[in-house]
Amino acid sequence: MSEVITAVYEITAEDPAGRAALVAVEQSHELPTELSPANAVRDSLAHVREVVERPGRPALVTVDYPAGLAGGELGQLLVLLLGNVSLQDGVRLVDVTLPAVLAGALGGPRLGVAGIRSLVAEPAGALLATALKPVGMTSEQLAALARDVAAGGLHVVKEDQSLANQPWAPFAERVPRVAEAVRAANPHTVYLPVVNGGAAGFAEQVRFARRAGAHGVLVMPGIAGFGALAHAAELFDGGIVLAHPSFLGGFTASESHGIAPDVLFGTLLRLAGADASIFPSWGGRFSLSRDQCLAIASAARRPLPGVAPMLPTPGGGMSIDRAPELLDAYGPDTLFLVGGDLRRGGDPRRAAERLVAAVRPG
Amino acid sequence: MSEVITAVYEITAEDPAGRAALVAVEQSHELPTELSPANAVRDSLAHVREVVERPGRPALVTVDYPAGLAGGELGQLLVLLLGNVSLQDGVRLVDVTLPAVLAGALGGPRLGVAGIRSLVAEPAGALLATALKPVGMTSEQLAALARDVAAGGLHVVKEDQSLANQPWAPFAERVPRVAEAVRAANPHTVYLPVVNGGAAGFAEQVRFARRAGAHGVLVMPGIAGFGALAHAAELFDGGIVLAHPSFLGGFTASESHGIAPDVLFGTLLRLAGADASIFPSWGGRFSLSRDQCLAIASAARRPLPGVAPMLPTPGGGMSIDRAPELLDAYGPDTLFLVGGDLRRGGDPRRAAERLVAAVRPG
Repeated sequence: MSEVITAVYEITAEDPAGRAALVAVEQSHELPTELSPANAVRDSLAHVREVVERPGRPALVTVDYPAGLAGGELGQLLVLLLGNVSLQDGVRLVDVTLPAVLAGALGGPRLGVAGIRSLVAEPAGALLATALKPVGMTSEQLAALARDVAAGGLHVVKEDQSLANQPWAPFAERVPRVAEAVRAANPHTVYLPVVNGGAAGFAEQVRFARRAGAHGVLVMPGIAGFGALAHAAELFDGGIVLAHPSFLGGFTASESHGIAPDVLFGTLLRLAGADASIFPSWGGRFSLSRDQCLAIASAARRPLPGVAPMLPTPGGGMSIDRAPELLDAYGPDTLFLVGGDLRRGGDPRRAAERLVAAVRPG
Repeated sequence: MSEVITAVYEITAEDPAGRAALVAVEQSHELPTELSPANAVRDSLAHVREVVERPGRPALVTVDYPAGLAGGELGQLLVLLLGNVSLQDGVRLVDVTLPAVLAGALGGPRLGVAGIRSLVAEPAGALLATALKPVGMTSEQLAALARDVAAGGLHVVKEDQSLANQPWAPFAERVPRVAEAVRAANPHTVYLPVVNGGAAGFAEQVRFARRAGAHGVLVMPGIAGFGALAHAAELFDGGIVLAHPSFLGGFTASESHGIAPDVLFGTLLRLAGADASIFPSWGGRFSLSRDQCLAIASAARRPLPGVAPMLPTPGGGMSIDRAPELLDAYGPDTLFLVGGDLRRGGDPRRAAERLVAAVRPG
């Protein structure tokens, strides 16, 4: 049998088998089979392998797609897995299995867990990050904050997704200033500015960030596109590519359509080339459950031939006090993102030191 | 008062006013106000202008964002309007109003309705399109199909989103062949290949399509990113940029979160630079209502200072028989996309002629 890409969907419908057949056609030929040329039916039509009805829960449907449909490209894989049916309620993508050749061809993280650990000189143990915010601070204010948290021992200083090229701290002024502040404060802290310029502006910003002494970039694939992660890695050789979930929540906010969070924030962003992937952890301001969050972490790190492990990066309302509990749940191969809680008390350096101590007991 | 970007959200929550305040902070500072520097609170914090509770329906909440938060960029405008709250259930973006200066700076369609009409030499009356599919057909088969429907009088031959660079009809082989077939069959038919290559591949494909004699490209902003529309227009000077909704449905498939279809497929894609925007029409395989579809068409065409009107492009299970009804509902400044129905009977040229006749009565 030829190689296949296998997708598992949860289908909520009165006739799950009928709906499954429609999904298979929609996602491959998008044309009734009887109207398709015989060679196309033979070579490129998807097939429903299994429909498992579950009382009181959505049916679990497995669809096999001829691997050639993805054309060896991540973007086309996404079209294939959910492109058109994303527009329909009742269909949720919950698992994906790729042939090893395709997974390897997509590339995945260039640095991944090991590469990031090497850059921050922390071979084991939890990794810690914070975000520079709020928008409206001047470049000087942001640089001072970055200096403080780097001196306090955080591994990663990333910019908030709300920063762009606004008048209060323009990109070309802010990035060199913050990079210099971080470098001076701690040689083992990395700084990741956010890049969100449109069209050719994206590449220019990534190149500028590299020249300015940043150690990688924060990218929002929901806005910049899924190809932007690999593009950033290509433009910023040796730099960290951190994915931010902004504008991706349409896929995960409902249980009856879209994409399971572990598939989106774990598997797909890893295949797309994120070295680390931010997602909203449970207990914060967002809606994911503990099980969903741990599944994301697991998908980020599980063995996948030819694809490096990605660093799961839980954030979204996390606190210093919760750090031990979260470390226990996620394990040390995790980048913990703590934002506002480092700002309470008015001494970010001390707060960063407390956070470091909280995950380095003894 | 300084200029503001105004967003209206439907909020489903027990305490809509409280939730509205959280949304305003999340989407601007993402930090409790008491932890923000005074200058940032003064300059860049969003404000809830109004909360209208409606019995049995979500509350209608109006938020004013300082216009500078968008930094003059479409991508950052999207971060601002829904970035993080897209990850939360119960918040739906239903309207956006921009200062004229910002709307004009974003650019919008380069060709729009008038530019497309000029390219297809059809100054008034309904415009007609079909899709080349299914994937798995050879380049020869696709070129023959394109020739037939162009000869039958269709204005636009676009490729299906399922086509990419697969072995059955590789991009570099297929695009010149189809372009030549269309050109030979009808000088007033335009051909729009799909471009979905990742990273640098996207720009290469757009440039290749232009050199090969295509008249523009089909772009999937849900995968290639929202900046890809303007990028394509920049790379393909004078070419049509047609937006496809693949992978955007997470935002519209539920009523309790995401983005109202007219805002997403109408306003936002128009601002992003689509000359025409495909959306799934009612009565087909997808879930949008008649009112939602007509609202998309209205958002595509309504006067917006400095932004050209965009051509609404309803598709998704449309038929020749429904053409008069749809023309009556949408009006003539519409690109009607008919796919599979042109293939019934095995003579696409005759079917195209019937479709043309159906919208040109008398």
